[in-house]
Amino acid sequence: MPFDPASLTYDANGLIPAIAQDALSGDVLMMAWMNAESVARTLETGRVTYWSRSRKSFWVKGETSGHVQVLREMRVDCDRDCLLVLVEQEGPACHTNRRSCFYTAIREGEEVEILKPMEG
Amino acid sequence: MPFDPASLTYDANGLIPAIAQDALSGDVLMMAWMNAESVARTLETGRVTYWSRSRKSFWVKGETSGHVQVLREMRVDCDRDCLLVLVEQEGPACHTNRRSCFYTAIREGEEVEILKPMEG
Repeated sequence: MPFDPASLTYDANGLIPAIAQDALSGDVLMMAWMNAESVARTLETGRVTYWSRSRKSFWVKGETSGHVQVLREMRVDCDRDCLLVLVEQEGPACHTNRRSCFYTAIREGEEVEILKPMEG
Repeated sequence: MPFDPASLTYDANGLIPAIAQDALSGDVLMMAWMNAESVARTLETGRVTYWSRSRKSFWVKGETSGHVQVLREMRVDCDRDCLLVLVEQEGPACHTNRRSCFYTAIREGEEVEILKPMEG
């Protein structure tokens, strides 16, 4: 069946959550949002393109930082209201310069930093 | 620093997305929503507990199906507006009886089913 971005279920703001997973390590890197046009652009260009809710504009991941996400595969969940993008991540995915945004673990009730910023 | 569920950033409905990842395989299994109380209950009980938006009630994953998610670790992202839960998943995570909800891949513009329902 041909895939149509319009067939996805978007929220009241026209957005769908997209989880980025490192295609090599399997690490979950980040979660951000897409609208139908960013889904289409991501598939067309092979560069993961989110919708920035704060800037209200398309956000080609890594366009300014160089920390691009090359799309390996996009997957849709059973309810069609969430996306998983398997990516080749260049450098850190997180704006804090860490590989993943999920660098804080809850262990025995305490917040523990489990990832350091990358060097260079 | 002690972790306080109230320190997270919830949306207008008081919810935060929670990504469940298989602690053993690294597979992303599903995404669902939590409110502050389900975050607290998940940490207290070690059973992943979402908030069902359709039923407007707590949803102890697997409570009726037996397909529980035992919490291995909860992680918070940099913006504190998304959670990652590493889980031991009993059986299928998806209501379609598949291991993961992300069983549809987009390949060359076509939707491809990449996971079959589990047996038994």
